[in-house]
Amino acid sequence: VSPGPPFITFLSDYGVSDDFVGVCHGVIASVCPQARVIDITHGISRQDVRAGAVVLREALPYMPRGVHLAVVDPGVGGRRRAIALRLGDERLMVGPDNGLLWPAAEDCGGIVEAVDIGDSSFRLEPVSATFHGRDIFSPVAARLACGATLADAGERCDPGHLVALELPRARLAGDKVLAHVLYIDRFGNLQLDAGADDVASLGLSPPGRLTLHAGSRAYACSLVSTFADVDPGRLLLYEDSYGRLAVAIREGSAAELLRTETEAEITIGPRE
Amino acid sequence: VSPGPPFITFLSDYGVSDDFVGVCHGVIASVCPQARVIDITHGISRQDVRAGAVVLREALPYMPRGVHLAVVDPGVGGRRRAIALRLGDERLMVGPDNGLLWPAAEDCGGIVEAVDIGDSSFRLEPVSATFHGRDIFSPVAARLACGATLADAGERCDPGHLVALELPRARLAGDKVLAHVLYIDRFGNLQLDAGADDVASLGLSPPGRLTLHAGSRAYACSLVSTFADVDPGRLLLYEDSYGRLAVAIREGSAAELLRTETEAEITIGPRE
Amino acid sequence: VSPGPPFITFLSDYGVSDDFVGVCHGVIASVCPQARVIDITHGISRQDVRAGAVVLREALPYMPRGVHLAVVDPGVGGRRRAIALRLGDERLMVGPDNGLLWPAAEDCGGIVEAVDIGDSSFRLEPVSATFHGRDIFSPVAARLACGATLADAGERCDPGHLVALELPRARLAGDKVLAHVLYIDRFGNLQLDAGADDVASLGLSPPGRLTLHAGSRAYACSLVSTFADVDPGRLLLYEDSYGRLAVAIREGSAAELLRTETEAEITIGPRE
Repeated sequence: VSPGPPFITFLSDYGVSDDFVGVCHGVIASVCPQARVIDITHGISRQDVRAGAVVLREALPYMPRGVHLAVVDPGVGGRRRAIALRLGDERLMVGPDNGLLWPAAEDCGGIVEAVDIGDSSFRLEPVSATFHGRDIFSPVAARLACGATLADAGERCDPGHLVALELPRARLAGDKVLAHVLYIDRFGNLQLDAGADDVASLGLSPPGRLTLHAGSRAYACSLVSTFADVDPGRLLLYEDSYGRLAVAIREGSAAELLRTETEAEITIGPRE
Repeated sequence: VSPGPPFITFLSDYGVSDDFVGVCHGVIASVCPQARVIDITHGISRQDVRAGAVVLREALPYMPRGVHLAVVDPGVGGRRRAIALRLGDERLMVGPDNGLLWPAAEDCGGIVEAVDIGDSSFRLEPVSATFHGRDIFSPVAARLACGATLADAGERCDPGHLVALELPRARLAGDKVLAHVLYIDRFGNLQLDAGADDVASLGLSPPGRLTLHAGSRAYACSLVSTFADVDPGRLLLYEDSYGRLAVAIREGSAAELLRTETEAEITIGPRE
Repeated sequence: VSPGPPFITFLSDYGVSDDFVGVCHGVIASVCPQARVIDITHGISRQDVRAGAVVLREALPYMPRGVHLAVVDPGVGGRRRAIALRLGDERLMVGPDNGLLWPAAEDCGGIVEAVDIGDSSFRLEPVSATFHGRDIFSPVAARLACGATLADAGERCDPGHLVALELPRARLAGDKVLAHVLYIDRFGNLQLDAGADDVASLGLSPPGRLTLHAGSRAYACSLVSTFADVDPGRLLLYEDSYGRLAVAIREGSAAELLRTETEAEITIGPRE
């Protein structure tokens, strides 16, 4: 755990219009007043576990080590498990067992220890059927931040039995890279599951010229280092700040132009 | 007051697009650097005192005891009073005297002491006509968090003369419960002013089948414990996380389907 | 610097839907765990340097003295400089050299010392081409908050060579004030670059009657002290909480009625 106060990071699809996030902050402060909470984001699309998993995986390396709380939980009140994890790099994670935590855990040394916290003694009673963020996940995260052990928090379970979430990976096919949209940010930039090495293997490097295929359409595109390398309104492919290829339009929205959604296939090839 | 740092909770209709909330945080940090601020939400609909009062009442039990600042203030700069309160459970509240604080105060032991802070010596000078959140409420809340007494903050006034806000309550009529929409969250879930005991008094309990009337239309609805008990797209009535009945659609918006607004009447009865 | 913890204030156009803001908070907490971050707002319109500069200038006097981080950065990855500044009142600022920091710096004693932090040893490596908020600005701000000097953070540069941003000023023309829209808030209130003294010089003071010209249209308007002085739906001109004149509609949106945008000219004169 970091020097300084214990840190809890928090990601969810709760949005900021209602009091869901604030109430979880209140519970955490009541249980562990010295904990400091960093909100990664609460803007994950409603119940989009996959988007939450992508964002959590990419944000976590920039967070101080601590307890990492994440709640995107379409199965709340049903049979999905509630879990707390210890990772290979000593980070702790708390959330639903629906794959949300999985890709981040894989990238941080894998799951070393797991407990089922559905009946944790740290829960707020009575536990509601619909707001486990408040009643289970937040108090467990707060107790862990204040020094409780995973064994105190719940019943040990087998990490091998947790729900996995495998994200797609781009692959080469002839002289093209078949990639997928992993995530779309608020600017309409499309993050792909491909890296600079994938286009390098086609013999392409910035600055260069490409053709993208999305749906049934083809688009001329520049392969560059950054937005400033193209004129406003132009389509570009660049290595984004997380080391992944991304499609964007300078001062525009690539998501709108390509009319594309998460998981859509985007093909990258030499200029046709 | 809690162990650990002094806490100030903050609820408003200021939104997060502008700097209103940030400026209040800045004022609080300048006056009482050690105070920690928990934002309950700033997403209350503009000038909707009633929605603010509902959310504040339900969130407050989850907040650490401290100073509870709330600003939804359509009468700013007019004749409404600015007040600070001490409640029966020792919480302190600060905000406009327009009913916003009233339901939460009633639920936390009632108002034990009240002062008019319109001319408080803690105000920032000059006091603007339109931003009392910055100039009056935040500095008073910060001084109270740092240990000032209510008597230091303003002129004593009679709690019996403050503006009350009575929220509606469901009632029974024959074999039906006549309820009202208290609050609509960002998912379109409708929180009612009825509890599980109201439908229990009709002899109904989950899992069960109901008919809802909203406006001139009737809707078949399931009475269940949680979202996972119905198929996606189905209408459900369930006890929400605050112990109130709520109408929702799994993976959909009940507010859209029922085309209903806050305060609308919803009738709950046996399946017709 | 303030008593209590070191403060970093943070303004950007990153929005709250994605993890941009959260990741910067994570970097700051990793570098300087004891720093406290105050989010002024992240709702500046995308890449609107001018709006960011206006909001920063007005919010800064309400912030505890510390490190003031601001990122609205359409030129990221291009040739614009990244800078850290020391002001006449001892505040420190960090951000892009595109004018964003300029008006606030002018109002806080001017720029006393400036360093180019583009190659700062405090950067996160590798530095991405598109997210200098994370890789350059946040770690530099955090190191400064923890006591590093400006000379440690980068290469000294001449304050006289930085990019200036001069905001417009209203002027008198005959019996009218020619003003401009500086900023539009989420309520549709229009902040002008004129003050109460400008209309006073026309012999007008509240309560009074005016005519506004915007585009090719004229509007009857009341000159008052606050919203409560007019009926709902009525247009008013008032001195806003920052001491500037603003045009609003009580319980409505002046921006919608006047169909106006930032920088538009608004003419204020006696009732025609």
